[in-house]
Amino acid sequence: MDSKLVKNAIGRIVPTEVNGKQAVPFQGVGKYKPTGKKTAPPVATCADYPADGNKIVADIKTALIKAGIKDGMTISTHHHFRNGDLVANQIFDAAAEIGVKDLMWFPSASFPCQAPIIEHQKNGVIHHIEGSMNGPLGDYCSQGKMRGLGVLRSHGGRYQAVQDGEVHIDIAVIAAPTADPFGNANGLTGPSACGLLGFALADSQYADKVIIVTDNQVPFPCVPWQIQGNYVDFVVVMDKIGEPEKIISGTTQITKSPDRLLIAEMTAQFVKDAGIMKDGFSFQAGAGGTSLAFAIYLKEMMKDAGIKARFVRGGSNQYLVQMLEEGLTDYILDGQTFDLDGVRSMRENPGHVNTSPFTSYNYHGKGNFASMVDAVVLGATEVDINFNANVVTHSDGKLLHGIGGWQNCLFSKCTILPIPSFRDRIPVIVDEVTTVCGPGELIDVVVTERGIAINPKRTDLIDATKNSSLPIRSIKEIKAEIDEIIGSKPEKPKLGDKIIAVVKWVDGTILDSIYQVQD
Amino acid sequence: MDSKLVKNAIGRIVPTEVNGKQAVPFQGVGKYKPTGKKTAPPVATCADYPADGNKIVADIKTALIKAGIKDGMTISTHHHFRNGDLVANQIFDAAAEIGVKDLMWFPSASFPCQAPIIEHQKNGVIHHIEGSMNGPLGDYCSQGKMRGLGVLRSHGGRYQAVQDGEVHIDIAVIAAPTADPFGNANGLTGPSACGLLGFALADSQYADKVIIVTDNQVPFPCVPWQIQGNYVDFVVVMDKIGEPEKIISGTTQITKSPDRLLIAEMTAQFVKDAGIMKDGFSFQAGAGGTSLAFAIYLKEMMKDAGIKARFVRGGSNQYLVQMLEEGLTDYILDGQTFDLDGVRSMRENPGHVNTSPFTSYNYHGKGNFASMVDAVVLGATEVDINFNANVVTHSDGKLLHGIGGWQNCLFSKCTILPIPSFRDRIPVIVDEVTTVCGPGELIDVVVTERGIAINPKRTDLIDATKNSSLPIRSIKEIKAEIDEIIGSKPEKPKLGDKIIAVVKWVDGTILDSIYQVQD
Repeated sequence: MDSKLVKNAIGRIVPTEVNGKQAVPFQGVGKYKPTGKKTAPPVATCADYPADGNKIVADIKTALIKAGIKDGMTISTHHHFRNGDLVANQIFDAAAEIGVKDLMWFPSASFPCQAPIIEHQKNGVIHHIEGSMNGPLGDYCSQGKMRGLGVLRSHGGRYQAVQDGEVHIDIAVIAAPTADPFGNANGLTGPSACGLLGFALADSQYADKVIIVTDNQVPFPCVPWQIQGNYVDFVVVMDKIGEPEKIISGTTQITKSPDRLLIAEMTAQFVKDAGIMKDGFSFQAGAGGTSLAFAIYLKEMMKDAGIKARFVRGGSNQYLVQMLEEGLTDYILDGQTFDLDGVRSMRENPGHVNTSPFTSYNYHGKGNFASMVDAVVLGATEVDINFNANVVTHSDGKLLHGIGGWQNCLFSKCTILPIPSFRDRIPVIVDEVTTVCGPGELIDVVVTERGIAINPKRTDLIDATKNSSLPIRSIKEIKAEIDEIIGSKPEKPKLGDKIIAVVKWVDGTILDSIYQVQD
Repeated sequence: MDSKLVKNAIGRIVPTEVNGKQAVPFQGVGKYKPTGKKTAPPVATCADYPADGNKIVADIKTALIKAGIKDGMTISTHHHFRNGDLVANQIFDAAAEIGVKDLMWFPSASFPCQAPIIEHQKNGVIHHIEGSMNGPLGDYCSQGKMRGLGVLRSHGGRYQAVQDGEVHIDIAVIAAPTADPFGNANGLTGPSACGLLGFALADSQYADKVIIVTDNQVPFPCVPWQIQGNYVDFVVVMDKIGEPEKIISGTTQITKSPDRLLIAEMTAQFVKDAGIMKDGFSFQAGAGGTSLAFAIYLKEMMKDAGIKARFVRGGSNQYLVQMLEEGLTDYILDGQTFDLDGVRSMRENPGHVNTSPFTSYNYHGKGNFASMVDAVVLGATEVDINFNANVVTHSDGKLLHGIGGWQNCLFSKCTILPIPSFRDRIPVIVDEVTTVCGPGELIDVVVTERGIAINPKRTDLIDATKNSSLPIRSIKEIKAEIDEIIGSKPEKPKLGDKIIAVVKWVDGTILDSIYQVQD
């Protein structure tokens, strides 16, 4: 197969082949229609599994050997421990001991704690990574040092890719805070409790072999079974699988910046004035500090107005938990607990419901939850004058973030990006974003400290807010003001010609390319 | 394909073709190893579903038309309402109005309330039924009047057949006591609450099109979503889908017969004396009156001895619920609520856990729950001197019962059949059962009012009880006593040569044939 470069429906240059597989260029939102059937794992038989249900083996290395690990296989992990994961590095240390090479690591996201994986890329154990690369691994990839292309997928896109057979997982390793010897597992209890295990759902359902790793073994049955033992081949018990106190990463603390607090308050005011905040409504706020502040402002406005939400979507945190406990929402529909209050609430409160990328985000399902959310508040590293937005690269071109659920959330009825107009004297509203992660047609509102820009396509929102006191302005007007303040044009990032990663859209097509950064 | 008749591993004559598909004769317990992959439904896309999540259509007929109903398709339903179902008949009335013919009905079980389906077999709308046929439909089939062969599968076998692609469901219709417009559904609440919907799980996962029918629409999200809306195409709201008071069928009332009470007590005593009843143990008791009485006797013995179970398996009923509420078990792992106390408990008690044929019974999974159960107590219509047992036909040869979870439960560590030695002067222990539903090697103990027979293979059980006061005897000895009392040999049923149905084993192979009954 010869890879060519083509221009996709949004005008971006993308390869037609990614890591040896044919790739479809982005065709427009809702335009690509999949054909064919879902992928299917081998049929198993109880005759090959212990009748007493005890699937425990000695250690990770033994489990990998029994699972038939071989050169070139794909090994998957989840990131519910975020920067507190203690398992992923051990997997590839064990793989190195076994002596296998050229593995593909398929994490739902990687974090700085997994920087040792760089060594396993250098020594040949890992060929490349498909999955979000936050921090050092993204930097390594940006420098053009990774073999193969990075493939960035949203949480929903990862489920879609596995379900559709784009990515075949040979061995899934699922770190589980509680599990029984049969492999039933959850994230609710135990010393490493992280809340839920939804990011590992596709892995459990579709991988050829599934290994559960736990530090809290309970007698059968482990209830609830967020991961079902009927999908599991082997169980490994070890001392410690994660550091839950590190679940709280930098993205889960409220901003202290006065500008960003102002932006957060304006965002909440927009949701109120546009008539979105009404009884039975729903919203989702991302993990960034501004999004968190937004939720707190909105909560106060809801209390003042006597408004109750039907559901709020998490990433959960203490502020959403307070809303649930104060009766301001019927439900938290949660895909990822961002702090230990979230973990506790999910364990104790039947209204705090665990969801998965399948229920919430998979675009190749019969609908998903994301499009039913009335308003979603998300971060972005850049937005351009056509409302296209970037969330994975910085203005210097470096790949430092994953997509998370960001792309999936864009299908909300009202997508709002509250962003500062500058970061470190670099403008955030630009003529053209470094990397397109979200097509402008899905981004409805940009809130900056200099005013609120509504996407011209959303005449309904423009009408709804025209008599409000909100500082509604055109995005070009806001940009012109920023440019005037800065005076000179900002330097473009120094990018090479070499494509080091691609951004997939929620339907598996290629939305954009990410280039090597020149030193 | 020419169907031949062959002798299978247990010496029964079975066809090599069933309803136009090749069939594998039973090869022995654990001997047949499946190859290949699970079946897979078409990949869907959110682009084809309403963004607001509202999938409601006018009525069943509209839903069937939108689902593309055509001649020869397979339509599935579940039986959680047992004899109180109000939906199945309406489906085929609608199909008749649409004018389609030769449908295959694939219920998880059928009941007398569905006798009108006989008319749809006569008028050509339905070609044949694959699924348990309790009562009039079984009788109709026994008379040789059904086109096609009846195919009797266990609950686990039904999941296996769907998962493995043996049965392709074109349209699943799932009656749901509560649902939202997206299709999330559960059986816990609403006027027709039936507890859970596990029998419809495979249908939701693998059918091409899925229709939810509810009489209790709630706003999104319907929590919990026992059936996930992401699998659902259409939702129909109607006045009344079921009569939950009829969930309680004849099989869920405790026996009043002194003989059977004695048998039940002896069974409990056996479980105690054999050392099975100990802290952390587990058991399952079927739905028959004797099994229910067994559970009550065992409960008293547990209380007296200060023993607590780790889990009991339901079909749940008021007696199991009492055990849970009195702290005599940590969990009820429940596949089917048999009365309204079961429904209430599952709704209210986190220790009353809903399970599915996938978790509990599917033999083509990576293990299942059934083999982890310490003791299971089941009914039977006949047992032979080799411990083979029958549960679907009567001694007169008539097909009147389904298999239910019976075959799946045989994998328990100790399978006990408490049965009277006669029914209406017909001996229950025979030289050869009319129909083999369970191979003797899996049946460990037969308890009659004339003594307890332990399968000679289970030397461990023989040893464990040899110093007890239990009346342990050989099965031949018990049979000889029965024969002597009756005096004359009982008449053999008058069976024709025509095979009218087959009994599948849990792995999809053909265990036995059922013959037309001569008038």
